[in-house]
Amino acid sequence: MNEQRWKTAITKVEPNKVLLRGYPIDQLMDQVPFPHVVYLVLKGELPSEAHGRLMDAILISSVDHGASPPSVLAARTVASTGAPLSTAIAAGILSISRYHGGAIEDCMRLMLDLVKHKHEKGVDAITVAREKVADLRAQKIRVPGYGHRIHTDDPRTNKLFALAEELGIAGEYVEMAHALRQALRESLDRDLPMNVDGAIAVMLCEMGFPPEMGNGLFAISRITGLVAHVFEEMVRERPMRYISPRAHEYDGPAERVSTGP
Amino acid sequence: MNEQRWKTAITKVEPNKVLLRGYPIDQLMDQVPFPHVVYLVLKGELPSEAHGRLMDAILISSVDHGASPPSVLAARTVASTGAPLSTAIAAGILSISRYHGGAIEDCMRLMLDLVKHKHEKGVDAITVAREKVADLRAQKIRVPGYGHRIHTDDPRTNKLFALAEELGIAGEYVEMAHALRQALRESLDRDLPMNVDGAIAVMLCEMGFPPEMGNGLFAISRITGLVAHVFEEMVRERPMRYISPRAHEYDGPAERVSTGP
Amino acid sequence: MNEQRWKTAITKVEPNKVLLRGYPIDQLMDQVPFPHVVYLVLKGELPSEAHGRLMDAILISSVDHGASPPSVLAARTVASTGAPLSTAIAAGILSISRYHGGAIEDCMRLMLDLVKHKHEKGVDAITVAREKVADLRAQKIRVPGYGHRIHTDDPRTNKLFALAEELGIAGEYVEMAHALRQALRESLDRDLPMNVDGAIAVMLCEMGFPPEMGNGLFAISRITGLVAHVFEEMVRERPMRYISPRAHEYDGPAERVSTGP
Amino acid sequence: MNEQRWKTAITKVEPNKVLLRGYPIDQLMDQVPFPHVVYLVLKGELPSEAHGRLMDAILISSVDHGASPPSVLAARTVASTGAPLSTAIAAGILSISRYHGGAIEDCMRLMLDLVKHKHEKGVDAITVAREKVADLRAQKIRVPGYGHRIHTDDPRTNKLFALAEELGIAGEYVEMAHALRQALRESLDRDLPMNVDGAIAVMLCEMGFPPEMGNGLFAISRITGLVAHVFEEMVRERPMRYISPRAHEYDGPAERVSTGP
Repeated sequence: MNEQRWKTAITKVEPNKVLLRGYPIDQLMDQVPFPHVVYLVLKGELPSEAHGRLMDAILISSVDHGASPPSVLAARTVASTGAPLSTAIAAGILSISRYHGGAIEDCMRLMLDLVKHKHEKGVDAITVAREKVADLRAQKIRVPGYGHRIHTDDPRTNKLFALAEELGIAGEYVEMAHALRQALRESLDRDLPMNVDGAIAVMLCEMGFPPEMGNGLFAISRITGLVAHVFEEMVRERPMRYISPRAHEYDGPAERVSTGP
Repeated sequence: MNEQRWKTAITKVEPNKVLLRGYPIDQLMDQVPFPHVVYLVLKGELPSEAHGRLMDAILISSVDHGASPPSVLAARTVASTGAPLSTAIAAGILSISRYHGGAIEDCMRLMLDLVKHKHEKGVDAITVAREKVADLRAQKIRVPGYGHRIHTDDPRTNKLFALAEELGIAGEYVEMAHALRQALRESLDRDLPMNVDGAIAVMLCEMGFPPEMGNGLFAISRITGLVAHVFEEMVRERPMRYISPRAHEYDGPAERVSTGP
Repeated sequence: MNEQRWKTAITKVEPNKVLLRGYPIDQLMDQVPFPHVVYLVLKGELPSEAHGRLMDAILISSVDHGASPPSVLAARTVASTGAPLSTAIAAGILSISRYHGGAIEDCMRLMLDLVKHKHEKGVDAITVAREKVADLRAQKIRVPGYGHRIHTDDPRTNKLFALAEELGIAGEYVEMAHALRQALRESLDRDLPMNVDGAIAVMLCEMGFPPEMGNGLFAISRITGLVAHVFEEMVRERPMRYISPRAHEYDGPAERVSTGP
Repeated sequence: MNEQRWKTAITKVEPNKVLLRGYPIDQLMDQVPFPHVVYLVLKGELPSEAHGRLMDAILISSVDHGASPPSVLAARTVASTGAPLSTAIAAGILSISRYHGGAIEDCMRLMLDLVKHKHEKGVDAITVAREKVADLRAQKIRVPGYGHRIHTDDPRTNKLFALAEELGIAGEYVEMAHALRQALRESLDRDLPMNVDGAIAVMLCEMGFPPEMGNGLFAISRITGLVAHVFEEMVRERPMRYISPRAHEYDGPAERVSTGP
């Protein structure tokens, strides 16, 4: 009846000592920004300054997207029954699935596959991209990571690509993302820009994350928005109301400019 | 059959524009660190530089605590059945409850109550603390936020208190935390230091967060650890294994020193 | 590092033998109806024929209540993101909380309390009921288990009370339920009939269930409806649709009459 | 901003009337056993007497299997943190996934596929079964529904097959189950009997349920066990204990015989 021993490489806990991937946690608290620690915990190593900076921007990019996404509606619905805050946000996390956040993983797999093909066949990115677009269109499959039901020119996507250039991170995956967009434009005869899930996917590929972590990164970012929505539901609304997915209006602060940290 | 209209003050979404509490999200991605954005989304305003810095350290302090906490065991147990990553981490979030993370909220309520009493009665912190300790001990209720099953001198607590002093944030709640510790020492005849939940509670009080958000802050921090554990379970262990809560060994990197970001 | 041994009194599993509360499971499958087994697993003993019959009716009474309850909306919202069926129904279970199903536990506590008072004070039910109604109205607290947003004369409530009489189960708790209704009528000057949560509460009190199991019984009944709704969402609707809580129409079979089993 | 109208065929709710698939709920409570109502809600029609009887036995067969399955461990782990009962049982439901209960769906797909092949090719069951076993063994894939880590001759499986014969339900799927067992025996040179998940799968195929509902049926049955375990954890154990998956002993009633309902 002995339980089997098992191993973990994430955190070592001893009396008065906590080592995250080998680093004393109080040292990290002192010297390393939280997004770098997220990278460390997930990947096992601290990021370069550039990777850490990009991770910071990725975490902000999905932190909230208003009250209409299913994760927010599920979380608010559970909150409206009087459930504890953590129970309600967990219901939101359950909604992070194939069609909500899942495009990150799908697009990562596509990008990894296309760049691998490019190398194996010794051709250029646009050739691989055109073949793939033709192939997916023939099967009537949407290209994951392109198109959005609200944004045609998503500021989050633009900022991530600009940062990748600025930080010297843009490589083969960024190149392939541009090639796919061009191939889509040629095939559809209109522009179908990359959405934020696609942009995050490209950045995670550039930094070497595995695709299985796609939904995890999205959840790490979005949980903050879920906490805010559940709290707002608790303090502002009556229990058991019918929560219409779109009949809401924004009444927060007007547009304003941050002056930086 | 019209659904009732409702309001939200968190995020405004328009075509090609996302405003978080009024700030364009791409501007935030460019200029503001993620922990400051967490503060903004939860509280409605960007933090001062000092508050943002402390929020960063709080988020790191609870990011992971090894493989034994119930949130990790629940998440790994669900992962071992072949469930998707987001389903498994949600099971972990469900474990963030009264006895796991819940001391943050309980300790915040205690601190808010004691500081309010101090003002109402016009007495000093130690007087209020001694009365409270006597009162709780008479009812055989543990003082939330003090004592830990592993650490007697928690490096995370020490670092948070040191940062609060250094950043000029330490005020009445830090004072009350020290007074309570002293009152406990007098009453128990031994030292019962504050744990990390207590330290986070004190910091959140100093920054004006509502106690109802205690579990939310803990979840925002810990979800990264949960993603790492679920991923490790998926890639390293066979399905449906019996997961003993303590029969694990750390086999990650040896202790090492970060050189800063 | 030895794990502590612990005990359970529910099920004994040995090679080729499964005993539920002592009874071989294949014998139960052969001889005992499922609602009796539910009663056995929860309470530890098989019910009398009358208790088993009432348990059967209780399980049917809450099996589904259309597409508007929050448990259904949370489950369908999660299903619409492409999550697995069990993940989606779990989101529905998370909605079974204070304001959704929770009246069963609240009403059980009220009933247990009132019947205890009746005995302690040696007065009759209506006296205790009038005092309680006056007390709750003074505190502006709703009496749990009375009133419904749709039904004024709930067929489920009527059937449960009729069965309790017919089966000889109606006792002090049924008496107290009637007394409370009378006291409410006198106080409000209009009739506020018991809802199905209240009726279930009364029946569970008559059969000696603990109030902490209230939400459990509701979940055991409602999960079947949740499975049906999630399956319908999966096969009938497109992913990521906006699910309005009330903009739905019933298009199933017209009213029909069962001819019995 | 109008929400789209949608349709549901499960339950019609009007003031003082609830129709489940067309049948007044109070009529069902009066005349139809709960397992028949489960069948009705899931499939849309009341079962024949034989199908209803088999559904009753299926629901009992998976109601609990002791304290070691991951659904119980996840639910108890969450319960031990002080979470509400419904939150804890939801964590258990999240564990019903590919490797825990999932064999029902996998085995249903296999059976449906094999019987379809039998018809298309115009051959007998054992021929199709031998081909499939050879094929799966060549790919080193386990045949879903066969083999169990504890039982070699599962009383639940035996009872379900016996009932299917007795009730005249045994048809092509039961035949195929026997053929597969024979083909496995020939191929492995030892007997690998069907487990309870496999037996439930065969019965659901015989009654015409879709494979996507496999996990749903398992959850409908197992939730009662989860409620019992969570309740036992709440009343019998201290919070935040380390729950070893196998270091438990049964201390309930000794084996006893039911005398029928």
